Amino acid sequence: MKKYNGYLIDLDGTMYRGTECIAEARDFVKELHRKGIPYLFVTNNSSRTPAQVAEKLQSFGVPATAEHVFTTSQATANYIFERKPDASVYVIGEEGIRTALEEKGFTFAKEDADFVVMGIDRSITYEKLAIACLAVRNGATFISTNADIAIPTERGLLPGNGSLTAVVAVSTQVQPIFIGKPEKVIMEQALKVLGIPREETLMIGDYYDTDIMAGMNAGIDTLLVHTGVTTKELLKQYEKQPTYTVDSLREWMDRI
Amino acid sequence: MKKYNGYLIDLDGTMYRGTECIAEARDFVKELHRKGIPYLFVTNNSSRTPAQVAEKLQSFGVPATAEHVFTTSQATANYIFERKPDASVYVIGEEGIRTALEEKGFTFAKEDADFVVMGIDRSITYEKLAIACLAVRNGATFISTNADIAIPTERGLLPGNGSLTAVVAVSTQVQPIFIGKPEKVIMEQALKVLGIPREETLMIGDYYDTDIMAGMNAGIDTLLVHTGVTTKELLKQYEKQPTYTVDSLREWMDRI
Repeated sequence: MKKYNGYLIDLDGTMYRGTECIAEARDFVKELHRKGIPYLFVTNNSSRTPAQVAEKLQSFGVPATAEHVFTTSQATANYIFERKPDASVYVIGEEGIRTALEEKGFTFAKEDADFVVMGIDRSITYEKLAIACLAVRNGATFISTNADIAIPTERGLLPGNGSLTAVVAVSTQVQPIFIGKPEKVIMEQALKVLGIPREETLMIGDYYDTDIMAGMNAGIDTLLVHTGVTTKELLKQYEKQPTYTVDSLREWMDRI
Repeated sequence: MKKYNGYLIDLDGTMYRGTECIAEARDFVKELHRKGIPYLFVTNNSSRTPAQVAEKLQSFGVPATAEHVFTTSQATANYIFERKPDASVYVIGEEGIRTALEEKGFTFAKEDADFVVMGIDRSITYEKLAIACLAVRNGATFISTNADIAIPTERGLLPGNGSLTAVVAVSTQVQPIFIGKPEKVIMEQALKVLGIPREETLMIGDYYDTDIMAGMNAGIDTLLVHTGVTTKELLKQYEKQPTYTVDSLREWMDRI
């Protein structure tokens, strides 16, 4: 049986569901930590900083520091930095994406920005969308942290960043570059941070359309855990199956 | 030469450009008025009431009362009324659509509304979009006043209602019923208000994709006037041509 030397792990639906910790996942990560096997949490959440995410994981007893968290906001900031280190950006989004862009030293601009970046923004306004449209029409490169169409909440499924992004995409008729899962952009960067070769790394997640497809798109073996979105029933509909499936991460403990 | 006994006339790009009156169009409508030929202005603008629109036309010297104006908001309210006179509605939009729905006596609701109605709303918020998504997921019929992707302003092209509508359409994966031009819904209703048979009516507008297509979709003869969006050059790209084209409505004066 193949052993993996590094793990990329999804958060929502894999490590917790909303405010509820998934105990088997916590125990699994504790075991990785005990054995000194590198792991990195990879999330499409652009609203929180790595430190904020780590704090939540710690509160569940999961061994995690900010360095164990890789967000789509960090991937977005890296992506822009690789192309134009002195870029000006116009950003729609919350603390996570703003902090990630600030840390790279980008300047902030409006209609004349080099890049327009959209992440989930629950304080969205028409004026913010208007500036984004004007900047994209002026030639800014249009980037969106992730294409998630909905966010699960206790009220039901609320609009995700992919649906907010549609305002600018539809109005300008320019399609954004998406960074988050299932795109391989975030996965390639996460592999670099993890520091383990692709073929020795396993991607773990609960959602076929983002986590598993991201792994496949990046040529990484995948493990689907049925603790979140993609049930066994749903999984049957997909032609290309994950490398492995488990009901909970308890089943993977002896594979570490 | 065929004479028409009734006219449906677009506003922006046909009667005026922003705050600038198109003199030939004003003179043309004055002549219709003098000869007692029925005319109705048909607009995708959902934000203003017929009285507000008439006031603007009057300020340009165009003979117009509220009864001469038919907006996509009125068409939307009529559409719902024909299907469920006691409907509850959740509305995103400005004064025009709110007034039109109030005048029909609908009740206003939120997540449990029978209909979700979206018109342009420059005070859009995440919470408004969230309620619309929840209502549509709960089974509300999803209606959008119009699919216009952009609004021309002095700042440039800002997001139109079609792009705001995309948030809810993308998030819920439910496509809305569009009411405004180029849909025939608004045209069928406008014909009823005008009171002239379809084959005796001419639709005048400057924008092929909305005005002319609306006429074609409703089986009404069309006149494209090159005072707005669709230039002669752009028009060449379309296979199906309008019934008539003119540079300005001065050319149509002797056809009245």
